[in-house]
Amino acid sequence: VIDFFVEPASTYTYLAACRIGALAAGIPVRWRPFALGPIFAAQGFRDSPFNLFPAKGAYMWHDLAREAAALGLPFRKPSVFPRNSTAAAKLAFVGLAEGWGEDFLVRVCRANFADDRDIAAPDVLDDLVRDAGADPTAARARLPEFATQLRETTAAAQALGVVGAPTFVVGGELFWGNDRLERAIAAARR
Amino acid sequence: VIDFFVEPASTYTYLAACRIGALAAGIPVRWRPFALGPIFAAQGFRDSPFNLFPAKGAYMWHDLAREAAALGLPFRKPSVFPRNSTAAAKLAFVGLAEGWGEDFLVRVCRANFADDRDIAAPDVLDDLVRDAGADPTAARARLPEFATQLRETTAAAQALGVVGAPTFVVGGELFWGNDRLERAIAAARR
Repeated sequence: VIDFFVEPASTYTYLAACRIGALAAGIPVRWRPFALGPIFAAQGFRDSPFNLFPAKGAYMWHDLAREAAALGLPFRKPSVFPRNSTAAAKLAFVGLAEGWGEDFLVRVCRANFADDRDIAAPDVLDDLVRDAGADPTAARARLPEFATQLRETTAAAQALGVVGAPTFVVGGELFWGNDRLERAIAAARR
Repeated sequence: VIDFFVEPASTYTYLAACRIGALAAGIPVRWRPFALGPIFAAQGFRDSPFNLFPAKGAYMWHDLAREAAALGLPFRKPSVFPRNSTAAAKLAFVGLAEGWGEDFLVRVCRANFADDRDIAAPDVLDDLVRDAGADPTAARARLPEFATQLRETTAAAQALGVVGAPTFVVGGELFWGNDRLERAIAAARR
């Protein structure tokens, strides 16, 4: 089993979210939306390190575009970064319980990093819930059932030693970054 | 042509330094020793981020050991990190002018990350110069000729936007990390 820690606001999570379905065929993957904000805050960062350290950010945007192109994935640099992903992650927990959560999360990542849509906006999220085949009003009505999930999953990630996204966890072992997806899958197949 | 920015104190530089020779066969590679310290300092870091952010460091050491094992490279976590690589880098410039510099740099990285030897110690460096087939006394006698090279190469790296090591530069485009070595080589072959 692979635990896939997904942060919809995270750049390289977009690539991994698009890839993991095909690559991990036959392996159970548990998608676990979490929030990087508290994990960065624990390191003393009040913003994405890619914003706090502009040279690192400049490199990352170039690398992300290059990796997306190599993977044949559409990419457009978002006009706002990072976007607040709390509402998206909370809706995703509803979707994961109902079977449309993975598709929704891929759509959220794509909206953010390929279409430059505001994934913090309720109307955008409603569109994406509908695109994933569900009813946004019904999904929102179930949010209270999942009220603690995002906080708990973020705490679980932190306890496991997660420092960034995406992170894959196989038998307690961490694999950080889209670049480590293949190794995580190989570990899960052993 | 690939510019290979080498920091002998850098963990993932060890992996790249061991790999680039075989992978880049037929492509001219220019080994450019530089110092990460000033580049980290420009980001406000007075130590390696792997020390400043312990969770990140813990993950890195696990990942480095795993990557080394996957590549069949010996690895032992150094008892001191990061080691001061200034003397090693300065000697490397002499070696690069004389044809033994690349071998020497690989040996320095291996001494640091496989054998836990103090690459800041003159006797260790003398051993490694000898292992690379040169005479340490003669090499040291030429150091004044290369007195400004390390500073200049570090400034060149910074001007190019280098934020970490190893970094490969092909036609002005940056590829950061051992994970990007294959992409850098593919770019150089185009």
